[in-house]
Amino acid sequence: MAGLTIWCNATLGEPALKLLRDEVVPHRLVFSDAPAVSVLDVGKPDPSLAAADVAFGQPDPDSLLQAQRIRWVHLTSAGFTRYDRDDLRLALRRRGGYLTNSSHVFDEPCAQHALAMILALERQLPKALVNQRGDRAWPIAELRAGSRLLNGQTILLLSFGAIAKRLTQLLALFHVRLIAVRRKPDPFPDVEVVGVGELDRVLPLADHVINILPENRETVGCINAARFALMKRGAYFYNIGRGPTIDQDALIASLKTGHLGAAFLDVMVPEPLPPEHPLWTTPNCFITPHTAGGHADEEIRLVRHFLANLQAYTRREPLVNRVF
Amino acid sequence: MAGLTIWCNATLGEPALKLLRDEVVPHRLVFSDAPAVSVLDVGKPDPSLAAADVAFGQPDPDSLLQAQRIRWVHLTSAGFTRYDRDDLRLALRRRGGYLTNSSHVFDEPCAQHALAMILALERQLPKALVNQRGDRAWPIAELRAGSRLLNGQTILLLSFGAIAKRLTQLLALFHVRLIAVRRKPDPFPDVEVVGVGELDRVLPLADHVINILPENRETVGCINAARFALMKRGAYFYNIGRGPTIDQDALIASLKTGHLGAAFLDVMVPEPLPPEHPLWTTPNCFITPHTAGGHADEEIRLVRHFLANLQAYTRREPLVNRVF
Repeated sequence: MAGLTIWCNATLGEPALKLLRDEVVPHRLVFSDAPAVSVLDVGKPDPSLAAADVAFGQPDPDSLLQAQRIRWVHLTSAGFTRYDRDDLRLALRRRGGYLTNSSHVFDEPCAQHALAMILALERQLPKALVNQRGDRAWPIAELRAGSRLLNGQTILLLSFGAIAKRLTQLLALFHVRLIAVRRKPDPFPDVEVVGVGELDRVLPLADHVINILPENRETVGCINAARFALMKRGAYFYNIGRGPTIDQDALIASLKTGHLGAAFLDVMVPEPLPPEHPLWTTPNCFITPHTAGGHADEEIRLVRHFLANLQAYTRREPLVNRVF
Repeated sequence: MAGLTIWCNATLGEPALKLLRDEVVPHRLVFSDAPAVSVLDVGKPDPSLAAADVAFGQPDPDSLLQAQRIRWVHLTSAGFTRYDRDDLRLALRRRGGYLTNSSHVFDEPCAQHALAMILALERQLPKALVNQRGDRAWPIAELRAGSRLLNGQTILLLSFGAIAKRLTQLLALFHVRLIAVRRKPDPFPDVEVVGVGELDRVLPLADHVINILPENRETVGCINAARFALMKRGAYFYNIGRGPTIDQDALIASLKTGHLGAAFLDVMVPEPLPPEHPLWTTPNCFITPHTAGGHADEEIRLVRHFLANLQAYTRREPLVNRVF
């Protein structure tokens, strides 16, 4: 397969753009007139998509249905909720096509972000920083007593994909007990992988509950008031999956009563979170603005990941991070 | 050796005190009238020391010289600067005695604290928290671009004792290059251990410089203006050793010019740091109030460590964490 037309609506800086232009040859690049602002934004409908063989970026899902020539869609995100539609699956399948994502680019930063959140809470870094920006006291006794060693604690991972697997590698060195809940509970070294039906049995065991659930019909609202209540008193809750998988009102209530010890959220509803939203000011609730997957050389790594898959595609070899 | 008199000036809560009382039998405990407030405070001179065989806590060094019966001093801290005196070494040696510290209790929390600091800076957690306590904007693009993967970066450890060794175990999983400077540069797996004479050669190589130097005649003022200037532009500097080993004015200047990218300090001069001290408000300078070694079950672990050494002492076996 040579001479493919590759439509792109990813917003890329000069170094990543140069890499893409240089390495995509002998194929042809067509840039959308309305590029997506970030990897998280969907592009606007764009007639130039109709003439392309491959779409790279965040194409408008309805336009993909119409663009009959498109055989392969490669997303610049790990999330693919807006493409998770029966009509799109069917349309691509009929064309013998595929949807792939950039999950591989974001596994490592997301795992490092999750570990950063866990260690930050255990070492009381948010309280230290609030003190520094506040009355600049010397809360040595309080912060030392509030710090906890990870060793011997139980960490529960909700979903067990590439991010979670990488995170368990990093956490294993701390001599923790690792439990993961997965639709298909295949065995994995040093991790107790259990099925979704056992979620309510394992929730009370965990000192740290790390939600990495993607957003789909089965996961929306999954972590509700009853499940927050099942968590151990004082447990720390994290969300680096998708905001709609948790009941935020129930989370706020649990933090306010002191049942949950703390929450560290990278995703929420809505995003951006408006300044007046109560999550910002709920006690022991800490927020990063959907940055878990971000990293300085993200665009370069996104382009490299696409180019590697493009090579596989033209050689009719299996694609990496195939969604369907 | 049975029936030892053990003098103690450690301030211990009920669970740790009960453990000590229960397990110290058949030896006799004598508590100082003036207990130390924390593991970092020295006790006041106390005449009851003179009748003891063993001192556990933070005894006054001058009183130790006078207390001829004392054969073994076990400190509740990892630091031992105030006991690092020729007269005390000589006095204990003449009695056939030893000084041990609690380094083993603090290795793990200090290593976890250092990793927490590193990951917090790389994942932009301080900026996210400042935003949350400030105008609650949504700085997604800035924070994603400022986040960096640890992978491929160079991390330099100043001193290479138990904390640094544990930290290198934790860091090895991130595929970083590890360099350590040590007086006695014995080889160590996966770490380039170099002698003190090579400090200035390796300083410019590091993305992260982690100072774990203890305080003594050779280390005071070691990291001075010339050495901050040798560090890579944008490097992150950490201090979990002792405050006097760095020139704080030079650190502040380097952060102000933007030569250093950030600093995360757990120790400084003086402690407590007064609210008006410029370190609190220097840009990109983050502070924890000497909490790196702290953890919830610290007192229990301190007592267990002492009891294990007490058993070794009475059996005339080698003591753990012997200083001299």
